[in-house]
Amino acid sequence: MQRPAHFHNMTDAATNMRLKLPITCFILEIILIILFGTLVQYDHETDAKQWHNQSHEDYENDFYFRYPSFQDVHVMIFIGFGFLMTFLQRYGFSSVGFNFLIAAFALQWATLMQGFFHGLHGGKIHIGVESMINADFCTGSVLISFGAVLGKTSPVQLLVMAMFEVTLFAVNEFILLSILGTRDAGGSMTIHTFGAYFGLMVTRVLYRPNLDKSKHRNCSVYHSDLFAMIGTIYLWMFWPSFNSAITAHGDDQHRTAMNTYYSLAACTLSTYGMSALTAHDGKLDMVHIQNAALAGGVAVGTAGEMMLTPFGSMIVGFLAGVISVLGFKYLSPILEDKLKIQDTCGVHNLHGMPGVLGAIVGAVTAALASTDVYGGGLSDVFPDVASGDVTATKQGGIQAASLAVTLGIALLGGLIVGFILKLPIFGAPPDTICFEDSIYWEVSCEIIILYILYFFQSDLQVKC
Amino acid sequence: MQRPAHFHNMTDAATNMRLKLPITCFILEIILIILFGTLVQYDHETDAKQWHNQSHEDYENDFYFRYPSFQDVHVMIFIGFGFLMTFLQRYGFSSVGFNFLIAAFALQWATLMQGFFHGLHGGKIHIGVESMINADFCTGSVLISFGAVLGKTSPVQLLVMAMFEVTLFAVNEFILLSILGTRDAGGSMTIHTFGAYFGLMVTRVLYRPNLDKSKHRNCSVYHSDLFAMIGTIYLWMFWPSFNSAITAHGDDQHRTAMNTYYSLAACTLSTYGMSALTAHDGKLDMVHIQNAALAGGVAVGTAGEMMLTPFGSMIVGFLAGVISVLGFKYLSPILEDKLKIQDTCGVHNLHGMPGVLGAIVGAVTAALASTDVYGGGLSDVFPDVASGDVTATKQGGIQAASLAVTLGIALLGGLIVGFILKLPIFGAPPDTICFEDSIYWEVSCEIIILYILYFFQSDLQVKC
Amino acid sequence: MQRPAHFHNMTDAATNMRLKLPITCFILEIILIILFGTLVQYDHETDAKQWHNQSHEDYENDFYFRYPSFQDVHVMIFIGFGFLMTFLQRYGFSSVGFNFLIAAFALQWATLMQGFFHGLHGGKIHIGVESMINADFCTGSVLISFGAVLGKTSPVQLLVMAMFEVTLFAVNEFILLSILGTRDAGGSMTIHTFGAYFGLMVTRVLYRPNLDKSKHRNCSVYHSDLFAMIGTIYLWMFWPSFNSAITAHGDDQHRTAMNTYYSLAACTLSTYGMSALTAHDGKLDMVHIQNAALAGGVAVGTAGEMMLTPFGSMIVGFLAGVISVLGFKYLSPILEDKLKIQDTCGVHNLHGMPGVLGAIVGAVTAALASTDVYGGGLSDVFPDVASGDVTATKQGGIQAASLAVTLGIALLGGLIVGFILKLPIFGAPPDTICFEDSIYWEVSCEIIILYILYFFQSDLQVKC
Repeated sequence: MQRPAHFHNMTDAATNMRLKLPITCFILEIILIILFGTLVQYDHETDAKQWHNQSHEDYENDFYFRYPSFQDVHVMIFIGFGFLMTFLQRYGFSSVGFNFLIAAFALQWATLMQGFFHGLHGGKIHIGVESMINADFCTGSVLISFGAVLGKTSPVQLLVMAMFEVTLFAVNEFILLSILGTRDAGGSMTIHTFGAYFGLMVTRVLYRPNLDKSKHRNCSVYHSDLFAMIGTIYLWMFWPSFNSAITAHGDDQHRTAMNTYYSLAACTLSTYGMSALTAHDGKLDMVHIQNAALAGGVAVGTAGEMMLTPFGSMIVGFLAGVISVLGFKYLSPILEDKLKIQDTCGVHNLHGMPGVLGAIVGAVTAALASTDVYGGGLSDVFPDVASGDVTATKQGGIQAASLAVTLGIALLGGLIVGFILKLPIFGAPPDTICFEDSIYWEVSCEIIILYILYFFQSDLQVKC
Repeated sequence: MQRPAHFHNMTDAATNMRLKLPITCFILEIILIILFGTLVQYDHETDAKQWHNQSHEDYENDFYFRYPSFQDVHVMIFIGFGFLMTFLQRYGFSSVGFNFLIAAFALQWATLMQGFFHGLHGGKIHIGVESMINADFCTGSVLISFGAVLGKTSPVQLLVMAMFEVTLFAVNEFILLSILGTRDAGGSMTIHTFGAYFGLMVTRVLYRPNLDKSKHRNCSVYHSDLFAMIGTIYLWMFWPSFNSAITAHGDDQHRTAMNTYYSLAACTLSTYGMSALTAHDGKLDMVHIQNAALAGGVAVGTAGEMMLTPFGSMIVGFLAGVISVLGFKYLSPILEDKLKIQDTCGVHNLHGMPGVLGAIVGAVTAALASTDVYGGGLSDVFPDVASGDVTATKQGGIQAASLAVTLGIALLGGLIVGFILKLPIFGAPPDTICFEDSIYWEVSCEIIILYILYFFQSDLQVKC
Repeated sequence: MQRPAHFHNMTDAATNMRLKLPITCFILEIILIILFGTLVQYDHETDAKQWHNQSHEDYENDFYFRYPSFQDVHVMIFIGFGFLMTFLQRYGFSSVGFNFLIAAFALQWATLMQGFFHGLHGGKIHIGVESMINADFCTGSVLISFGAVLGKTSPVQLLVMAMFEVTLFAVNEFILLSILGTRDAGGSMTIHTFGAYFGLMVTRVLYRPNLDKSKHRNCSVYHSDLFAMIGTIYLWMFWPSFNSAITAHGDDQHRTAMNTYYSLAACTLSTYGMSALTAHDGKLDMVHIQNAALAGGVAVGTAGEMMLTPFGSMIVGFLAGVISVLGFKYLSPILEDKLKIQDTCGVHNLHGMPGVLGAIVGAVTAALASTDVYGGGLSDVFPDVASGDVTATKQGGIQAASLAVTLGIALLGGLIVGFILKLPIFGAPPDTICFEDSIYWEVSCEIIILYILYFFQSDLQVKC
């Protein structure tokens, strides 16, 4: 029996990773190790000597305030994002596996970049559980961009993208949090808007006019959709931990988690409603459920720590679900046809638009802040307003300006990085073999069985 | 090639959700938002002003005592229940997806209902992490009932069922906890017994005499059983968090988690033993492992917080496993044939009988309580006994009476709600297309491949 | 159509579990219950009376310091190990299911054995969250050994193995921690080295010369590899909790978690690099990713709580990944061909060599300890050094000696237990039906479909 032609291409020299990937991994990791050796130190809560030099109780260590949230965020990064992207029928290894690789790299690099921009103490970067959460957050942004280019990039391209994106993320974050005094604990702007528009610009630059040659693989099968639901549900469940992971101790973490919980619940109902309303034959579309139901978490990423109230959170979540499904149904095809943006996972609908919504909600909520509502808690949520440095209205203006800054850096950064990734040295797959694991992975027998089924039963019309 | 006849039915007008589901989702969510806007407020641990008005340390916020448990419970509700029900070969989307939908609705509605019945402060419902846990608990009860009707109901029916069941749950919970003074931290009665018998009565009223027309789909395939094991294992692992989530701080949470841990371990061994003993050819049956191994968690739902000892917990867990496997093997067929109760997931064996066992164990353990054993901790576990309002024996009697009340409300409620669900306006599937995702979901290519295999290889005898 | 011959063997009397498994489960559990009834008591943090007799705040209860870590460890034991082993194409039920069974048994038995050896108080074993973590740790060791014999043992054999291994684990742990004063919080020696070499010796004794008759089943399929990645990712994410679960409160838990986090990240990059470098055609091999990426957690199991620094942790993790991939690629075939060690999961590469590396790293790091670096924290990490009982150099020597002791007990114990397991009474599968679920489990229709496909398409060459 003859194998289909593109099986031969799969061992193509251009996409062979034998040297490219090891060299990239080893060089990057050795650089990381050297920089960690020269720059990074334990902070005063992880260093044995410093912690014991001070007088405090063990339960006051930040570990107990943040480590459970950190682990939830960690699950979102590695299981949540990793499995959410397994929906493609033969790209599961790459979805989970490349997610794993670039996240493991990005969290190390983010520790350095974020530490360099806003954590230097006497020339050294001090790290602890909060910096670990921040590193995971930055990694999340890279994984959002990964969603836009999913199936069309080599692991080396992804590592290069991660290196640049983490750097630009840290710059943007520094400008917002440290220079402008923006509040964005759950990252509607810094994480979601940034990651989405960066990735969309990269995928625009990497536009493949002949991608329809791989179209038959750019769809899900039954079990791949179930694997993807594992990712969705974990992201959904742990989003309250994500948004509250680095807010102030006490009522702030508590309130942020609760606001997010209700926003997501409301978002889920609007997502199901919109999906049945817009999809074929009144049936639910797994793509909507897997993605749009999460938009409620994105959209309270900025305002979640504020006194948004569960009522406000539910309105925001409800709108986010509506916008997101409409985006998947009507906007994504336009973006692809008119703007040549091939957004594999629809990150514009899950992270882009809901991120912008979240930024706007945050600006409005900030502008309405007052001591009357926040009492002594104002200094936790809006320290600059509490100290009298800015008015609440001004804080709202800063929040809005931060959205513009974020969009600018993301789009410009994505443009430049996109062109770098176009260099024909990173082993990108040809248009005919996108969305295909076997180009970068040893794949076992079953796939071949399926192939035989395809050819054997010639009357089988596979509809994707 | 001609498709089997029932493919045409799948686009039947009666089951079309284009308008039914959106209208239901939007109306329910808008009502929820309005009620939250008028009734719900942050409690003193989530409100910025109130928390900062008082003098306390951040680590005293209830968030740090309960949020890790909450997240474990949250995983049980969305991953645990959701994936446990994916065992059916082509009902995975609906199992996870409808579980997701009705849970997202139920937790919002439960916040209102539980708040209305036992959380009003000056006409307002105050919420925080404890109310979130309670809302998830109430949701769990609805999902148990979902297990009884799995595969035979439309998403609109399920939302309607959830709305009524949450309300009745709150009534029953109010009678038990607030009026009678019952102790039931892990919900042997309020959650498991209630959810099981409510669902069993609903499925009795919805009896389908011709359900055997869908019999070939009412079974598992290899990978669907593995997906279901994800649900099982998560339920099993996090049950200690479930039972201890709302017990008193300190030794109570600690003890409850530990009792549950040992009860489940013992239950697992008796389940494996009973499964091999009763199943065909001495082989293990996945249905038993997926379900009966969890009965140990249900059965210490009431007594887990008491001084049951690991020894007592293990005895209870062991018995629960034995009873549950026997129920699956011998009782379920009788219930179906004689009482016309079509219990898809066998919730009677996992939640019904073990819940009753748990209530009895709780009554006996309560009746044996004494200051000699509990010391100053008696007021945490049995406040009415500690205050002298009732004797321990009386408390035991109250516990037993609570079981009867729960059974009564569950059965009567299930009867009424069952008849409501029978109204021919909710888009229930016909008898020929139960246990089938494609009636409510866009389903991709693979399923069609499997169909072709079925027809192509006519000598294939599928045994289910 | 005629079924292949070995289908008939599957109902063989020798492997029938109808009586063997129930008898084993019931006898073991009844013994456990009796021993718990006579020996086990709540400790002072779980006992209502004792906790309330003392004066302390609720947040000082050890539950709040350790329970989140415990739950992460629990997930590693039941989901992590369970699903990691589902990579085999038709051994998923057994991988998750037997993992579940033997873990549920082992954690009870470990409570007794560890309590007997180092937890007796007036003849009674006192238990709480720390003993629960230790029981799970001991269980982990048994599951590592399970990985070596995976696919070739009956559940009764596994329970017998678990009984003996837990006992020997407790003896070894007692010698190390209580007699020698070894530090090994994350168990590089006590858990990983012990479990690996014990299991390797057992599988050596159980050598099957005709195992190639089951060779076609000793490989993965596409979806089984994805299920296995669920296990891998959970192990990877929660390893920081594993290593820090029983270290001292405060900076120790914090530092250990962070060291492990960076070790694993570095390990992941070296694993991907080495996999592409060594595997066929420059493609990544799922076996490497699933296993070697975890070696970084094993290798900082001893030194993780020490002042290893993130820099040191990353070097260790990097090396662990390199060693582990090389082991899978070059050493495992040699072990099988020359030493007749059939190591199904390659535990030598994931737990054996990285465990030894971790022990050595721990010995060196201990030898370098000084008050200058640890300050007042020295008494938490090296109490014997802080008290002046031993010098740091001596502590390093003790650590190195402990590795030798562990290897000795593991190999000798494995030898004896291997011969016990060879007794022809435990229902081990014949060589022709290894790596096959249907010998011990009721398996549903799909498997039969796959069988038919195999025979129907005779020109299909399955390459494994």
